[in-house]
Amino acid sequence: MSRVWNFSAGPAAMPQAVLERAQRELLDWQGCGASVMELSHRGKLFMGLAQQAEADLRELLAIPDNYAVLFLQGGATQHFAQIPMNLAGEGESADYVVTGHWGEKAVSEARPYVTVNVAASSKDENYLRLPPRASWQLNPRAAYVHYTTNETIHGVQFHDVPEVGDVPLVADMSSDILSGPVDVSKFGLIYAGAQKNIGPSGLVVLIVRRDLLERTTRPMARIFRYADHAANDSMLNTPNTWGWYLAGLTFQWLKEQGGVAAMRERNLAKATLLYDAIDGSGGFYRCPVEHAARSRMNVPFTLHDSALDADFLKASEAAGLLALKGHKAVGGMRASIYNAVPLEAAQALVDFMGDFAKRHG
Amino acid sequence: MSRVWNFSAGPAAMPQAVLERAQRELLDWQGCGASVMELSHRGKLFMGLAQQAEADLRELLAIPDNYAVLFLQGGATQHFAQIPMNLAGEGESADYVVTGHWGEKAVSEARPYVTVNVAASSKDENYLRLPPRASWQLNPRAAYVHYTTNETIHGVQFHDVPEVGDVPLVADMSSDILSGPVDVSKFGLIYAGAQKNIGPSGLVVLIVRRDLLERTTRPMARIFRYADHAANDSMLNTPNTWGWYLAGLTFQWLKEQGGVAAMRERNLAKATLLYDAIDGSGGFYRCPVEHAARSRMNVPFTLHDSALDADFLKASEAAGLLALKGHKAVGGMRASIYNAVPLEAAQALVDFMGDFAKRHG
Repeated sequence: MSRVWNFSAGPAAMPQAVLERAQRELLDWQGCGASVMELSHRGKLFMGLAQQAEADLRELLAIPDNYAVLFLQGGATQHFAQIPMNLAGEGESADYVVTGHWGEKAVSEARPYVTVNVAASSKDENYLRLPPRASWQLNPRAAYVHYTTNETIHGVQFHDVPEVGDVPLVADMSSDILSGPVDVSKFGLIYAGAQKNIGPSGLVVLIVRRDLLERTTRPMARIFRYADHAANDSMLNTPNTWGWYLAGLTFQWLKEQGGVAAMRERNLAKATLLYDAIDGSGGFYRCPVEHAARSRMNVPFTLHDSALDADFLKASEAAGLLALKGHKAVGGMRASIYNAVPLEAAQALVDFMGDFAKRHG
Repeated sequence: MSRVWNFSAGPAAMPQAVLERAQRELLDWQGCGASVMELSHRGKLFMGLAQQAEADLRELLAIPDNYAVLFLQGGATQHFAQIPMNLAGEGESADYVVTGHWGEKAVSEARPYVTVNVAASSKDENYLRLPPRASWQLNPRAAYVHYTTNETIHGVQFHDVPEVGDVPLVADMSSDILSGPVDVSKFGLIYAGAQKNIGPSGLVVLIVRRDLLERTTRPMARIFRYADHAANDSMLNTPNTWGWYLAGLTFQWLKEQGGVAAMRERNLAKATLLYDAIDGSGGFYRCPVEHAARSRMNVPFTLHDSALDADFLKASEAAGLLALKGHKAVGGMRASIYNAVPLEAAQALVDFMGDFAKRHG
């Protein structure tokens, strides 16, 4: 089979050009006679790759010098726990804004390490909208404010950075990092699992304002301390070298595409195409998420008759459209349209949806 | 350049056949039209891969049913901390046998979570031999006994499993897992970073007796609890799917090679070839490690005149022999000859060493 259009929520589609390059050089990287996976992370070749990847990411997101950039392991889930371990002293509290499944999980993994104040939640509204900023019950003495910029399951996304005063803002950007420009200086810490917009799973990119690294005081193993990772250029222990390599190739690809400003335009075009098709389907398809909060990365939608779901999935797969099944928490369908999913893919999906509606209308 | 003989200590050489297969199917795995990296870990295809990898590992090491097999992240270093977090209650102590750099590191990462009793150490002898079992000061009430089966930097290896009575034996097998048969039932927990004998870095394989999972009582995030990982088939969060895939291919390759018994013979042949060349070089080369403790995975050696080191490294690289520089802690050279390094490579190194000695003798 040839390549399909892949709408997987994550691990997700990667840029074809990146995969092709990785394939070409899989057994012999940089003419060294070995795979990039077979080299010491402390050798000159890999160190060069690692530094270039960091430099490219800094350029793409215009990351100020007073921020450290770390390439870590454990998935965002592990950092749900490590963030309070590092940013909150024992007995301190932190504010959490919960707008979907991942925000909930961030809270539950944080609880052993910090007193969690749920400052706002849209759970009572089934996470179909974002809680208005004015309703947030923030504590000015909180160690930090945590939120999730994009919720992959519920398909809600913040399109602006909320103002939270002097308390450091911590953002889980796993599913929308690099999808558009962001003012890093507004954040204390940004983190993202790689498997949506950066590379394969097993890698986490973490961007942290350096002064916050000094907060870590409670006893813990060095391997959990961000300050130690920063002091060792993310090589406190052996990093995920393959993940770092593919992240680097993806950053180069993003630069070739015109950077994150160009990605924002492209992502907006894909999302508009899909939401317009849903909203214009005369009720055949429906997206329950409030317009202003709709995600440009994950588009959840339902069919007017759920008895058609199985047919839709079968026919879409036969048409070369992969992984459209929605998460069981919300049902229906979901199209994830991260950076690596081209406009063509969104167009192919919209065409398929139109045909399907016609056949079953 | 064509492929070289790669003696890297880790990330290390991988089987060429495994890399070639990964290359072939990098863009289209199992005819699904996407890379294995681009698929949901919860989808049928990846779940099948994950289960097959576990089944193959269970077969290779004859792992009894009362052991869970986990595919985790964080490197062995993170598990230096997670093991006491999971296996020791607050206020308990654990015995550590320290035979090199990695044993030291295991101790220092464990200290925040358990009272460490260094039951034996060969540090005073520069880690050139193993402390005799009779000298170990074990505590019969210890939560567990921890040791490192093979020390990559110092080149010392246990060739038998030490008897420690009823206290669970915990082994860091990062650098010699699958290099030969092992009686898993003698252990409470075995763990290994993947980047020597299993696959790429960023993956840890952990084998734990199920009754020990019930020990975990102290408050911690779920992501750190082995019991939760076991209950979720290592999919509590998104695993390192590429690492898991390559581990699976490596397990299949090992089965095709005749399993771990065949690997032991092959590893013994490679190590014998190298140590014989060193010992028979009339003092040109020297390995300071006591014979009985010599590692079959990592062969550290020095030249009689360290002024020749730079020449040796330059000439060996030119001869297609990669990564022979010793670790700075011990100096000189080191040849790592894990499972994926063929006898041919060891022969090429021995031939080179003979020529070099002749030219500089």
